[in-house]
Amino acid sequence: MTSIWPDAALTRDAFLGGAVTLMQPRRGYRAGTDPVLLAAATGAEPGQSVLELGCGAGAALMCLAARVPGLDLWGVELQPPYADLARRNAALNGVAASIFGADLRAMPPELRARRFDHVIANPPYFDRAHSRPAPDAAKETAFGAPLPLPDWVDAMARRVAPLGRLTMIQRADRLPEIIAALYGRMGGIAVRPLVSRAGRDAERVVVTARQSGRAAFRLAAPLVLHAGARHVSDAGDFTPEAEEILRHRGKLRI
Amino acid sequence: MTSIWPDAALTRDAFLGGAVTLMQPRRGYRAGTDPVLLAAATGAEPGQSVLELGCGAGAALMCLAARVPGLDLWGVELQPPYADLARRNAALNGVAASIFGADLRAMPPELRARRFDHVIANPPYFDRAHSRPAPDAAKETAFGAPLPLPDWVDAMARRVAPLGRLTMIQRADRLPEIIAALYGRMGGIAVRPLVSRAGRDAERVVVTARQSGRAAFRLAAPLVLHAGARHVSDAGDFTPEAEEILRHRGKLRI
Repeated sequence: MTSIWPDAALTRDAFLGGAVTLMQPRRGYRAGTDPVLLAAATGAEPGQSVLELGCGAGAALMCLAARVPGLDLWGVELQPPYADLARRNAALNGVAASIFGADLRAMPPELRARRFDHVIANPPYFDRAHSRPAPDAAKETAFGAPLPLPDWVDAMARRVAPLGRLTMIQRADRLPEIIAALYGRMGGIAVRPLVSRAGRDAERVVVTARQSGRAAFRLAAPLVLHAGARHVSDAGDFTPEAEEILRHRGKLRI
Repeated sequence: MTSIWPDAALTRDAFLGGAVTLMQPRRGYRAGTDPVLLAAATGAEPGQSVLELGCGAGAALMCLAARVPGLDLWGVELQPPYADLARRNAALNGVAASIFGADLRAMPPELRARRFDHVIANPPYFDRAHSRPAPDAAKETAFGAPLPLPDWVDAMARRVAPLGRLTMIQRADRLPEIIAALYGRMGGIAVRPLVSRAGRDAERVVVTARQSGRAAFRLAAPLVLHAGARHVSDAGDFTPEAEEILRHRGKLRI
């Protein structure tokens, strides 16, 4: 339970326009916009329960708490140092959240006994078959864990309540694996592509599905994150729609 | 082989800015923009072979002939009156094309003996499980044939040459079925959404895949067909990009 990072190895970063403060290791997996977008796409209502698989330092859970009052928040994180950091971040932000250090393939009885209104995840982005390991071991697990993406989808689907919903964010090139895992198992599948600039190929996708949905598959319009044709500065240049979602708690509609 | 339609029951319609003239039944399945977009997305080079499954009256094949010189064009159509019309349309447009009246599940030996650089299709759009039959029997087969979409994908994949490519256009809500059928079987899968207006959900998708491709899946930017926020007139209001593809033989890039 003790942190592997001394405080000097942690940064405090603001998310959602300062509504969330997150302690993160200087080196290793650091949250960018993806967990913020995941929280914005979740569509949780006050009083609902949300479980995040692979919650890392808790960025998406803290963003959810800052967006929607009265949520019942749960997280599972394989790596104990990140699970510990998620607990510290919950305390830092005054959020009640139950964080478990556990493998998705062997979840604790408290979680196996429950179903959730929302199950969310931002699974590791690199497929080990096609990329090299990261030099940092903890970063490596966050980016390229050995658990295959269909197993993530399976673990999520098992924990979604009968009228609940799954929401995940992932690299766009993994969409066929996600769809193949969801198709015929969950309903109301919808995809919103995320693109850095208008007219580009999708870089990420947000995918939602309902446990008992029967609605037809939908492919929504891309959310364009950055304005202009090319990169100008790190700080700014978000489109008004992205700015509203990332800084002002706007919803990411799918 | 004889037409069920007297000439008075046929119209002559211009496609590709007048480069193609197509005889079509006044009542029944009539080609709109989809076969024109399918031909524009095919990416055939002069001298290559193209097989269309379910070629109808030959709209996509005639558009391909008008776009790319020296193609070796083949078509299969289940319904004899449409196969006959496709032959008449080939003659009308001065195009050499081999059209077979046959079921995709029992293709003639001439086709089973060959593989093609490109196999294309615009399979029927309505899933019989969720829609009512059309009143016209021929239109009904064109719109809601009983052959399941995965069987179309299978029939296409079997006829694609080792370095060849499959291209299809279909309703966006059928994308999961297409991806599930292609994933793990063909490579280099890419999807381009087609939307009527900017910001809307995709209505159609163009999907391509390579027989021996290893490229990652790509989700391209939507092609927006109509300018403005809502429908103004039937004739005009195409976006410049759609106009270039539909009237001036521009490529639909994926």
